[in-house]
Amino acid sequence: MDSSSPIGQFEVSATDGHARAGRLHTAHGSFETPIFMPVGTKATVKAMFPEELQSLGAQIILGNTYHLHLRPGEKIIKKLGGLHKFMNWHGPILTDSGGFQVFSLSKLNKITEKGVEFRSHLDGNKHFISPEISMQIQMDLGADIIMAFDECLPHPSPKEKIIESMDMTYRWLLRSKEAMTRKESLLFGIVQGGLDLELRRRSMEQITSVELPGYALGGFSVGEPIHMMHELVKVLGPEMPANKPRYLMGVGTPLDLILSVDSGIDMFDCVMPTRVARNGLLFTWQGKVRIKNEKYRTDEGSLDPDCDCYTCKNYSKAYLRHVFIAGEIISCRLNTLHNLYFYEQLMMRARNAIREGRWESFRNDCLTRFASEERSS
Amino acid sequence: MDSSSPIGQFEVSATDGHARAGRLHTAHGSFETPIFMPVGTKATVKAMFPEELQSLGAQIILGNTYHLHLRPGEKIIKKLGGLHKFMNWHGPILTDSGGFQVFSLSKLNKITEKGVEFRSHLDGNKHFISPEISMQIQMDLGADIIMAFDECLPHPSPKEKIIESMDMTYRWLLRSKEAMTRKESLLFGIVQGGLDLELRRRSMEQITSVELPGYALGGFSVGEPIHMMHELVKVLGPEMPANKPRYLMGVGTPLDLILSVDSGIDMFDCVMPTRVARNGLLFTWQGKVRIKNEKYRTDEGSLDPDCDCYTCKNYSKAYLRHVFIAGEIISCRLNTLHNLYFYEQLMMRARNAIREGRWESFRNDCLTRFASEERSS
Repeated sequence: MDSSSPIGQFEVSATDGHARAGRLHTAHGSFETPIFMPVGTKATVKAMFPEELQSLGAQIILGNTYHLHLRPGEKIIKKLGGLHKFMNWHGPILTDSGGFQVFSLSKLNKITEKGVEFRSHLDGNKHFISPEISMQIQMDLGADIIMAFDECLPHPSPKEKIIESMDMTYRWLLRSKEAMTRKESLLFGIVQGGLDLELRRRSMEQITSVELPGYALGGFSVGEPIHMMHELVKVLGPEMPANKPRYLMGVGTPLDLILSVDSGIDMFDCVMPTRVARNGLLFTWQGKVRIKNEKYRTDEGSLDPDCDCYTCKNYSKAYLRHVFIAGEIISCRLNTLHNLYFYEQLMMRARNAIREGRWESFRNDCLTRFASEERSS
Repeated sequence: MDSSSPIGQFEVSATDGHARAGRLHTAHGSFETPIFMPVGTKATVKAMFPEELQSLGAQIILGNTYHLHLRPGEKIIKKLGGLHKFMNWHGPILTDSGGFQVFSLSKLNKITEKGVEFRSHLDGNKHFISPEISMQIQMDLGADIIMAFDECLPHPSPKEKIIESMDMTYRWLLRSKEAMTRKESLLFGIVQGGLDLELRRRSMEQITSVELPGYALGGFSVGEPIHMMHELVKVLGPEMPANKPRYLMGVGTPLDLILSVDSGIDMFDCVMPTRVARNGLLFTWQGKVRIKNEKYRTDEGSLDPDCDCYTCKNYSKAYLRHVFIAGEIISCRLNTLHNLYFYEQLMMRARNAIREGRWESFRNDCLTRFASEERSS
């Protein structure tokens, strides 16, 4: 039984090449890996009810510490019984540290060894987050997986800046771990080091020297050419501790996911499938579809004949185009539902392929499908 | 069996005072009256899936001829199998004639005996709708109930203009009936006549002299003081043919519905519950709630303890406030779902009260509840 397994236990049940299939146990149940985690920035995965997420195969979702801290505030959420109860999602939740948003969204941030002072992007009010405060916020939210507070540098950054930053990220990890007092929450450390393999390895050595239930690769998807990420993950993935879940933060496209699973990565999150869905870009097993395209105006076919999601089973491309162009809320719903279903199906098929020893052929099939441009049909 | 009853058959199973409970049979099944019909303007009831509408008690929905004619066009919808299939709603659909929107939304409309020339509010293109064209559009959509093409005057209008207009509406009804060639569709006539009781009676005499499966009161909710509508409906409702469904178009608040049922009205539609939901105004059995109110910031209670809808069963007022202020799509969904559930519950309770001979006490209880201002709790 999952529920009797200790919190934090991670079992790798199958490997095929570097790809692995496993299971991580949390205080709100376990989830299978490789897994894609939909992003619920402000205590909702945009356009979706929690029950829909569950039925499309989502096993764990993300919450954003920065956004929830600013509004409605973690103390209110704690008073109301925690993030799970607040947003009506009863499976595992991972929260990020707030670091990424502090550096990318907030204004006038000022970084010292102690932490980061910044102004809210909502109202300009001054805030301060340190490793200790980030841990306290995430514990107040009641997250099952808590991310250490790290510094995220933009790309490109000078080498000495990267070294300085990753050394501080290591010291912040020690403080994050020290501040963790909630035994139901699992702390993951974050490897930084820019796009330099040696620095990445040095950061990995620092971060993995701290005994933790999981490790992440951070600082990717910050504007670098995507092939540089793929090349680094290809080397770094297999070098990460084999007995712990490996999480590639903020990534990515279906192609990114397949390549990263191939490099031994277990966990992913990204706003992309939900964000582009709202803009009418849909992922299918035949390639990408821009639903506003004139050619779908009278197309009575389903979006993806190889998809069993609610959208594909009940609506024509002509309808999806109509409601997208009309700016109807149902368009966001149908598109988001489909894209998330596609991502979860991709991960489920990946798990099955790994378990059944046919990862290589599955991977190659995916690479062929996703490397091509938008389908012309 | 409903399905074996002839299309258009209307049975009044109970009366209590002027209030009545009945059932109308259509080509897509029957529905109980009194009934509230959610408005699906552009082939979607905003923010809702058809299955959700069904499960919250909606038995028939509306489509808007004007909007669907302009985009995507009824010929495309017909080619795709009709409006039911297009939008994945398999119960009865009523379409309006397009008249109301031609007069209120479009630009530069020019009315002659033949019909109305107007420019689309979307792109300024010129269009022409006549009674014959309106019937053809609604038949192409495959509507179960089709509304006659009428002229809607603004309030106030001079008496001679009202007379001229209602006389033309009568002639247009004769042409509408003549143009109806689809036996699965039921044509309803529309009584006009402004706010003058004698003109209304004259229009009713004209319209009901045409044998039709149902009759409507149009031209209300056009800016007149609401008590004037209530007073007229109180007289006119009971004078409408007793053996046919009576439909009060575009109305209204919970109070309007109860007062109108009390006057023998059977059918209602209004964008109000869905529109105000998206603006954070919620109907409850304790009165109206503006969810953005600061007092709900930490309120862990449900929106309405007397409501069994998904929103009330799963979320706190604090969450509803948070997602409303954050502008999240889930706010539109949760609020719309609740308001529609409230309206359908109101009608269901009304039907039960009529059937059980306790309409008067139910009506009085509702009047007390809905006449009061927003609750202060």
